[in-house]
Amino acid sequence: MAKPKKTPRPKAITPKGFRDYFGTEVTERKAMLDQIAAVYHLYGFEALETSAVETVEALGKFLPDVDRPNVGVFAWQEEPEAEKPGDWLALRYDMTAPLARVAAQYRNELPSPYRRYAMGPVWRNEKPGPGRFRQFYQCDADTVGAPSVAADAEICAMLSDTLEAVGIPRGDYIIRVNNRKVLDGVLEAAGLPDTEEFSDVRGIVLRTIDKHDKFGDEGVMALLTEGRKDESGDFTKGAGLATTQVELILGFVNGRQVDNDATIARLGALVEGAQTGIDGVDELRQIANLLAGQGYGPDRIVIDPAVVRGLGYYTGPVYEAELTFKIEDEKGRVRDFGSVAGGGRYDDLVKRFTGQEVPATGMSIGVDRLLAALTAKGRMGATAQGPVVVTVMDRDRMNDYMAMVTELRQAGIRAEVYLGNPKNFGNQLKYADKRMSPVAIIQGGDEEAKGVVQIKDLILGTKLAENASLEEWKDRPNQFEVPRGEMVAKVREIIEGYS
Amino acid sequence: MAKPKKTPRPKAITPKGFRDYFGTEVTERKAMLDQIAAVYHLYGFEALETSAVETVEALGKFLPDVDRPNVGVFAWQEEPEAEKPGDWLALRYDMTAPLARVAAQYRNELPSPYRRYAMGPVWRNEKPGPGRFRQFYQCDADTVGAPSVAADAEICAMLSDTLEAVGIPRGDYIIRVNNRKVLDGVLEAAGLPDTEEFSDVRGIVLRTIDKHDKFGDEGVMALLTEGRKDESGDFTKGAGLATTQVELILGFVNGRQVDNDATIARLGALVEGAQTGIDGVDELRQIANLLAGQGYGPDRIVIDPAVVRGLGYYTGPVYEAELTFKIEDEKGRVRDFGSVAGGGRYDDLVKRFTGQEVPATGMSIGVDRLLAALTAKGRMGATAQGPVVVTVMDRDRMNDYMAMVTELRQAGIRAEVYLGNPKNFGNQLKYADKRMSPVAIIQGGDEEAKGVVQIKDLILGTKLAENASLEEWKDRPNQFEVPRGEMVAKVREIIEGYS
Repeated sequence: MAKPKKTPRPKAITPKGFRDYFGTEVTERKAMLDQIAAVYHLYGFEALETSAVETVEALGKFLPDVDRPNVGVFAWQEEPEAEKPGDWLALRYDMTAPLARVAAQYRNELPSPYRRYAMGPVWRNEKPGPGRFRQFYQCDADTVGAPSVAADAEICAMLSDTLEAVGIPRGDYIIRVNNRKVLDGVLEAAGLPDTEEFSDVRGIVLRTIDKHDKFGDEGVMALLTEGRKDESGDFTKGAGLATTQVELILGFVNGRQVDNDATIARLGALVEGAQTGIDGVDELRQIANLLAGQGYGPDRIVIDPAVVRGLGYYTGPVYEAELTFKIEDEKGRVRDFGSVAGGGRYDDLVKRFTGQEVPATGMSIGVDRLLAALTAKGRMGATAQGPVVVTVMDRDRMNDYMAMVTELRQAGIRAEVYLGNPKNFGNQLKYADKRMSPVAIIQGGDEEAKGVVQIKDLILGTKLAENASLEEWKDRPNQFEVPRGEMVAKVREIIEGYS
Repeated sequence: MAKPKKTPRPKAITPKGFRDYFGTEVTERKAMLDQIAAVYHLYGFEALETSAVETVEALGKFLPDVDRPNVGVFAWQEEPEAEKPGDWLALRYDMTAPLARVAAQYRNELPSPYRRYAMGPVWRNEKPGPGRFRQFYQCDADTVGAPSVAADAEICAMLSDTLEAVGIPRGDYIIRVNNRKVLDGVLEAAGLPDTEEFSDVRGIVLRTIDKHDKFGDEGVMALLTEGRKDESGDFTKGAGLATTQVELILGFVNGRQVDNDATIARLGALVEGAQTGIDGVDELRQIANLLAGQGYGPDRIVIDPAVVRGLGYYTGPVYEAELTFKIEDEKGRVRDFGSVAGGGRYDDLVKRFTGQEVPATGMSIGVDRLLAALTAKGRMGATAQGPVVVTVMDRDRMNDYMAMVTELRQAGIRAEVYLGNPKNFGNQLKYADKRMSPVAIIQGGDEEAKGVVQIKDLILGTKLAENASLEEWKDRPNQFEVPRGEMVAKVREIIEGYS
């Protein structure tokens, strides 16, 4: 065996912007993803797991967060082979780019339409910040090859079912639907047609109105005309549009009416004469009808022109799921929880590879956001019960202690024997405490001779320590003796009493 | 929106050595990992998910496959910050190195002993080959901070339970246990003590006898003395040991006797006078006793000195699970399926970081190997039933078709409406076929007027097409009409008949 070299010790640290997940952090996320996958499966979606690594060429430059210029990928170059420079490889930054690659690569084998879901980590090489990590989970569902807006309606219905399946009750969320074509019609009407000349300013408009809920009408007006000074005094240069242009755009953003029919009528009026816009309004009407026909009423899904989505690649319907219950933010201000999922139609991503237009639509759930929401609702983050701990009073009798845990496990009870140094018994109980064990088993020589074990009810013990006078506990001992043969039954009784 | 540039189209390909997993490839692996996690959990192990990315410094040079010098990591350098060069980061190549880092980093917070399991992909930058990928799954369980061999015995028992839980019946596997200390004692007795001088030759001996089942006694003797010419005529230089030295080593490798007691006695004789070896034999005796005491007899776990494990870092007990049923290899030769999991005690890995010795032991399951074994046993890889497909006869009635799938889903039946271009009805049935749909629903204008739907039993249809004369099917129509209100019940009846 190689001897350790006399080099300085390596630092035991997670790389900057990465983190570790322990115990229930892993299992609760997994349980939520399992619930989501069950809904997707019911809707006919198939699992797809691509590798974490893609060629940089295949990933393309479709990084979602256009607002954050320092966002990038983690990339490296392969070793050169036969004097050809190696390919550049990178970790995927989302699930959509790999799907577009798969849809192109396997276009002759996959069913069309292809409904697929994908869950897993993605990586972004960006400056880490509080709560912002460089590896995080996404959970996507997309339909490739379905031109009809029925596919978009289906995704919205599935998103609604998914939120309820994981435990967000109806009334605590709303799915808002818009259409980029309508926005295109409005921009055209505002003198900003979809041509190379106006490409940049249209991008700015898009990103600004995506933040409408943050800036308000006034802020958007300032940002799109002369510029805006924020609370800290920083000035953001304006986009230089005329007030009348921005008024038209704001009229669109604020176009939501009392019900979907009224909203659609209002949007129709706004895009009058612009064919793309008219098509977009018609699509929204179809989506609203399909959803209403399946019982997804305005308590769950509404047409709302305020939804824009930051991504450049959307070409039709866009949708966003927002949680409407209140939470306190880090500064103690009460606000809506906000967006946890979103998506839309992107008909050009597969075309990058094949040259042929392939319609596609899909959504991505922000896994960490949704988990945080469920924790805020008290549906996650409960203290999980640890295993029963069989303590070691006599290290020569390890066989007996292991027999106890084996019996407990065979009865389906999570259990372990203490495997540290057994000399200090206090350490064993401290360990059981740290493990959140409900019960500790103790058997020294005396107990063995009498054919009994001591059962220590650790949850009751904690309660007694906290408030020993409480009526309901005062007559219950938190440690007692039972015949060895009754150990499993007694432990089960205690555990079931607390679960 | 940015316009697509006139650059050449990217290639839609998976990078070399990577692959995509579709549908049941994903869900069957997941189901197996869930079964494994349930056993680990029952044993008191806690989930840990570290990020895919570690600092190269933390990973260290502990790549498992010492035989393959071109094995490496995927690594890249962070951007420099404040004139300091950026850290080198890399994708993890196994689950053990990140565990050692975590055990050191959180040593004050984690319970001790710390039992953890980890499942997920690992990455190796090696030359891809047939069936060898650069990203693959591992599934590990380790106990950190438990000096007692009871921890090793527990891992072996858990491995046995795990194999049975996923569907490998008792008798189809064997877990073989050895101890590096015994091997050390034998090497010492053979004049190869654990000193810097003999470090290289000991490494060669280790890797050679790890391949004893491939080379046989003669091959090992040749490789460790003068060298060996293989079937193709290639000559491998020998390690230059004397025949008597190798005989001692081979006596150890072949030391397994009729039962554990006899094997232990034989090993005791071989290491006589070498304290490390004596300690090792004593540990094996304890492990055998603990396992026998819990009912894990020689039909499941045996002491076998032929198990060496390739890894340099093991310091005590090593263990390997082998599947003993026969399969045909790619050349049509019948052979044992072979190893699917293994591990051992490594007391020095955490010490790299902290300077303090932290005992640890654990195992890794080769997820793909185990899945392949289950497929070979017919427990995986069955054709999964697809969703019910509701066809679209009239695109203006999408609302009705979507109402049908909604009803089916609400009854828990996986279903989807055809979302491609509905013009060619034949394409819709071909799609249902590709989706492995058990049933297609058809409702044109006539059926709608009559208040009925057509149900097409696609599985029966396939059977009839294959062999229409079979008695049991000849009177069953594979397409028939039912009242719209009975659709869900009838579909359920058909699906349940086939599952």
